[in-house]
Amino acid sequence: MTQAKVAIIMGSQSDWPTMKNATTVLDALKISYHTQVVSAHRTPERLVEFSHNAAKEGIEVIIAGAGGAAHLPGMTAAMTHLPVIAVPVSSKSLKGMDSLLSIVQMPKGVAVATQAIGESGAFNAGLMAAQILALGDSALTQRLIDWRASQTASVPLEVE
Amino acid sequence: MTQAKVAIIMGSQSDWPTMKNATTVLDALKISYHTQVVSAHRTPERLVEFSHNAAKEGIEVIIAGAGGAAHLPGMTAAMTHLPVIAVPVSSKSLKGMDSLLSIVQMPKGVAVATQAIGESGAFNAGLMAAQILALGDSALTQRLIDWRASQTASVPLEVE
Amino acid sequence: MTQAKVAIIMGSQSDWPTMKNATTVLDALKISYHTQVVSAHRTPERLVEFSHNAAKEGIEVIIAGAGGAAHLPGMTAAMTHLPVIAVPVSSKSLKGMDSLLSIVQMPKGVAVATQAIGESGAFNAGLMAAQILALGDSALTQRLIDWRASQTASVPLEVE
Amino acid sequence: MTQAKVAIIMGSQSDWPTMKNATTVLDALKISYHTQVVSAHRTPERLVEFSHNAAKEGIEVIIAGAGGAAHLPGMTAAMTHLPVIAVPVSSKSLKGMDSLLSIVQMPKGVAVATQAIGESGAFNAGLMAAQILALGDSALTQRLIDWRASQTASVPLEVE
Amino acid sequence: MTQAKVAIIMGSQSDWPTMKNATTVLDALKISYHTQVVSAHRTPERLVEFSHNAAKEGIEVIIAGAGGAAHLPGMTAAMTHLPVIAVPVSSKSLKGMDSLLSIVQMPKGVAVATQAIGESGAFNAGLMAAQILALGDSALTQRLIDWRASQTASVPLEVE
Amino acid sequence: MTQAKVAIIMGSQSDWPTMKNATTVLDALKISYHTQVVSAHRTPERLVEFSHNAAKEGIEVIIAGAGGAAHLPGMTAAMTHLPVIAVPVSSKSLKGMDSLLSIVQMPKGVAVATQAIGESGAFNAGLMAAQILALGDSALTQRLIDWRASQTASVPLEVE
Amino acid sequence: MTQAKVAIIMGSQSDWPTMKNATTVLDALKISYHTQVVSAHRTPERLVEFSHNAAKEGIEVIIAGAGGAAHLPGMTAAMTHLPVIAVPVSSKSLKGMDSLLSIVQMPKGVAVATQAIGESGAFNAGLMAAQILALGDSALTQRLIDWRASQTASVPLEVE
Amino acid sequence: MTQAKVAIIMGSQSDWPTMKNATTVLDALKISYHTQVVSAHRTPERLVEFSHNAAKEGIEVIIAGAGGAAHLPGMTAAMTHLPVIAVPVSSKSLKGMDSLLSIVQMPKGVAVATQAIGESGAFNAGLMAAQILALGDSALTQRLIDWRASQTASVPLEVE
Repeated sequence: MTQAKVAIIMGSQSDWPTMKNATTVLDALKISYHTQVVSAHRTPERLVEFSHNAAKEGIEVIIAGAGGAAHLPGMTAAMTHLPVIAVPVSSKSLKGMDSLLSIVQMPKGVAVATQAIGESGAFNAGLMAAQILALGDSALTQRLIDWRASQTASVPLEVE
Repeated sequence: MTQAKVAIIMGSQSDWPTMKNATTVLDALKISYHTQVVSAHRTPERLVEFSHNAAKEGIEVIIAGAGGAAHLPGMTAAMTHLPVIAVPVSSKSLKGMDSLLSIVQMPKGVAVATQAIGESGAFNAGLMAAQILALGDSALTQRLIDWRASQTASVPLEVE
Repeated sequence: MTQAKVAIIMGSQSDWPTMKNATTVLDALKISYHTQVVSAHRTPERLVEFSHNAAKEGIEVIIAGAGGAAHLPGMTAAMTHLPVIAVPVSSKSLKGMDSLLSIVQMPKGVAVATQAIGESGAFNAGLMAAQILALGDSALTQRLIDWRASQTASVPLEVE
Repeated sequence: MTQAKVAIIMGSQSDWPTMKNATTVLDALKISYHTQVVSAHRTPERLVEFSHNAAKEGIEVIIAGAGGAAHLPGMTAAMTHLPVIAVPVSSKSLKGMDSLLSIVQMPKGVAVATQAIGESGAFNAGLMAAQILALGDSALTQRLIDWRASQTASVPLEVE
Repeated sequence: MTQAKVAIIMGSQSDWPTMKNATTVLDALKISYHTQVVSAHRTPERLVEFSHNAAKEGIEVIIAGAGGAAHLPGMTAAMTHLPVIAVPVSSKSLKGMDSLLSIVQMPKGVAVATQAIGESGAFNAGLMAAQILALGDSALTQRLIDWRASQTASVPLEVE
Repeated sequence: MTQAKVAIIMGSQSDWPTMKNATTVLDALKISYHTQVVSAHRTPERLVEFSHNAAKEGIEVIIAGAGGAAHLPGMTAAMTHLPVIAVPVSSKSLKGMDSLLSIVQMPKGVAVATQAIGESGAFNAGLMAAQILALGDSALTQRLIDWRASQTASVPLEVE
Repeated sequence: MTQAKVAIIMGSQSDWPTMKNATTVLDALKISYHTQVVSAHRTPERLVEFSHNAAKEGIEVIIAGAGGAAHLPGMTAAMTHLPVIAVPVSSKSLKGMDSLLSIVQMPKGVAVATQAIGESGAFNAGLMAAQILALGDSALTQRLIDWRASQTASVPLEVE
Repeated sequence: MTQAKVAIIMGSQSDWPTMKNATTVLDALKISYHTQVVSAHRTPERLVEFSHNAAKEGIEVIIAGAGGAAHLPGMTAAMTHLPVIAVPVSSKSLKGMDSLLSIVQMPKGVAVATQAIGESGAFNAGLMAAQILALGDSALTQRLIDWRASQTASVPLEVE
């Protein structure tokens, strides 16, 4: 896990098609990251170990995605002082409304930074990680500003 | 924690007015229980310790109540093989819909036994614990059957 | 119905593709079960007969699945002192939200142990039945602990 | 129960403040009725007995109100061929959305005639009973038409 | 429109695949019916005319189906004293939750008899019409009782 | 009804405390209006008459408020070519979600201009009426621009 | 942007398949319009410029469509005194419920005229624009009345 | 606005009782902040100016709270590269569900870090700001770790 600044964790292998969208902005802005499956429910010891060690291993921001009764982001945030960005993965029956409420409605004292349900949320989780890391990195700030400008420029004026 | 067969845990002191309803049937049926605050988010180590030790200390059934992004029941169930009965405590803005979905929508492999939102759910959690414990205890089974009969008898026929 | 410890009942033949997931853990842990269609609405007499006889015939845990205005789990629980584990089957228009609320929001005095909507819930219903039965069966407890350990071991570390 | 044409049943004494609104139109149109507590969950045998006997005792229309996981209207309809008009009583946490979905989302083959949540629904249940009974009673039809006309006349033109 | 006892109206031709389920029980029980498109929004004069004339033309029960902001059942009920059975047709975005609330939440003074969303609701609308018409027709009552018995008999005991 | 440019109609006298908020901007901008109770359900003939005559009597914009299964705005729009601005009035159980969906989810071919639930929506209905009427009235346009500027100026910079 | 009376703007190229339905009535009634992509989030300066210039360039009515956390209609309305008709575009996970609430629940002081979710809403947005523009244009009023009459005439009487 | 590291902005003075909870952790950890009313809808120019200048004036993290159709957090994020932490303020009718969806469901390309609805969310927004700022400040990191430890220590073991 050495040298990555961002850890992208998810509750299940099946979350990866959603969560890989978190890497788009990280790749574009040259931010190192590490990906891993950490199931709050099926591998609680791995969760404890990951959360306790993340800061020591140089991780600065954690992106955590999970679906349904999604406990991974909040439980990770309970065991680290690093900022945890959360992605509610869409679920089969309730289309991610369960994931969203399970993640965002945290009680006072442990915070997560929740993004939108699904792929857009995962994409924006990478962007939010970049925005946070840019605070202490002026070169990254410039790359972020440039990325935003190119995004703006790419919006077409005309439809069709 | 010695000798109690049921542990009633909750995420916050503020959940007690709801959760104390779980003791009604336990008291009526002479089932021993233990109550404790265990916050999944603010005391994750206490959660791990409680979950790992519950079976060893003679607990047979766990009742866990929490509100909002309620992770306590599912995380407890992730770390014990004992049955966990869950109570979604009503929340300020979303009236327990967040608590319910955070608790009930567990993924394959870790199960909780979810009750109704709020006081009725807490009351029924005590009843469900009794029904489970009665499987191996014929005297308790008889007390349970009697309790159910007296409940039926107490329903009035006439309104007003 | 002789010798089965678990009865898996469902409101309609069409619930079987969901409910058969309840048998996975039961098979893995060598727990005997019986399956049957019992429609609360179309066969109310069968429901009464089933509920009254289940305990006498040696059933210890009932798993009941139904969708829409799902009355089977709660009505069964009204007529037996055995624990009833409930599975909200997903519905066509409301995707199981109706099934979930119809099942979980039981009033004080009759309890069911509600699982997640759909296949995950059915899978976990089998697991919860095993957890309950293991309380009085140390060999089953060991098989359950082993099953959980193998589940944990099967979670991959790496994505893709 | 002799001579009443309408039976008003409810799951709990606590439903009466809502359900008494069902008597307004029945009283106004001189339709006889009978009220009774029948809890699907706590008095299932009373439910079976009531449902099987209603037609024999001269009841023509049943009004059934219940809240939360409200099974009374659907279960009654499962055991009688009389029309069952259903009133979802408002619930503490979910404000009757659970009651409504538990009642209205009946599967093919057993029908109930669902009204609005709460007092308006109970009021209209009485009206619907009158509309049904009026089909075979021309004097009642005339009283119903007159009642509707007086209702229309009572709507003010000006606000304040 | 002569001689039909039941009118099945719907807001749009596109509601017919849902609404034709209302004819199953009517056909089975030999109840005459009439079908027609009446759009509350696009043909308000046809709605007024239909509603005012239905009773005069011998219609005894009206079944009305509509989707989205579904005003047809309630507006019909506002202009006739005949019982109106309502079917919320499923909608594209909100899957019939909009149709259901638009139909069922009628204010005091005008009642509709709401069924489930979609095909099940349409099927049951036909059944409810039969139950209402059977009150004054002992031969129909017998056919209804027989139909219910055959329905009960057709529920399989075994799954698969 | 002579000389008013805006008609404010509502389904019930009880909607007035909400609907009177529609008069704030109309008064401020010196736009004449007329208020009236028109119940789609209890006074359908008044609704037809109002809708058919509104344009002839000089009304240019209609503001219609109703709650629950709110049919007034859509039915009015079905019978006039004037723009209808709709206000979903909050309801007792479902807090206006039923009102909102009953109003906004209009099918193709009949449009209403829906505002927010409750008082804010009624306030904005008056503003929207002003914005529409200002299109053909340059003096009103200037008053509207000034009103907007004064609103902006009145937002405090500091909290508390 | 010269000479168009209606501007149809949308947050993304991907909204066009929905938003093109807004042109049906505009085309039928010979109302000139202009289409453009304006992303509130990705092109905020374009949004400011568009909103400030719309009235000056002769636009009289703006139709704005967006999905998810849809800020385009409300932000446009904040920066122009022209009426803004809003279309909630359906979204992937929440099917437009997020779009609808993001658009319709505007606070006091800035109003939008919200239509239904998706294609029906876009269709009706064009119709509402026509209804507004017709207030000051008697020839357009006549075309609108004729269009409505032909729509009414096209509703079939018979199903199938 | 000089020297504050965190800006706390809100759409209305009425949001302050909620938003002041954001200052608790900031005060405890000695993080400087600035508070201001910025209404996306009523003061759009103030919004543009604030967003463009925040980074230049030394702000590193923005906390933005708003209710209903809450556009402030997303629109601020559209015009700055600083991280924006969002608080959905509870709303009158829909209890903050509208605020939450309006804020969290951001499309790809502009991200906000959403917290829970209401006071808990505002409290956690301050905590999340501290966690982000601590990344580049080891003294603050220590204070944060200490604050978390004291929070954990303050959770009682016993109920009542």
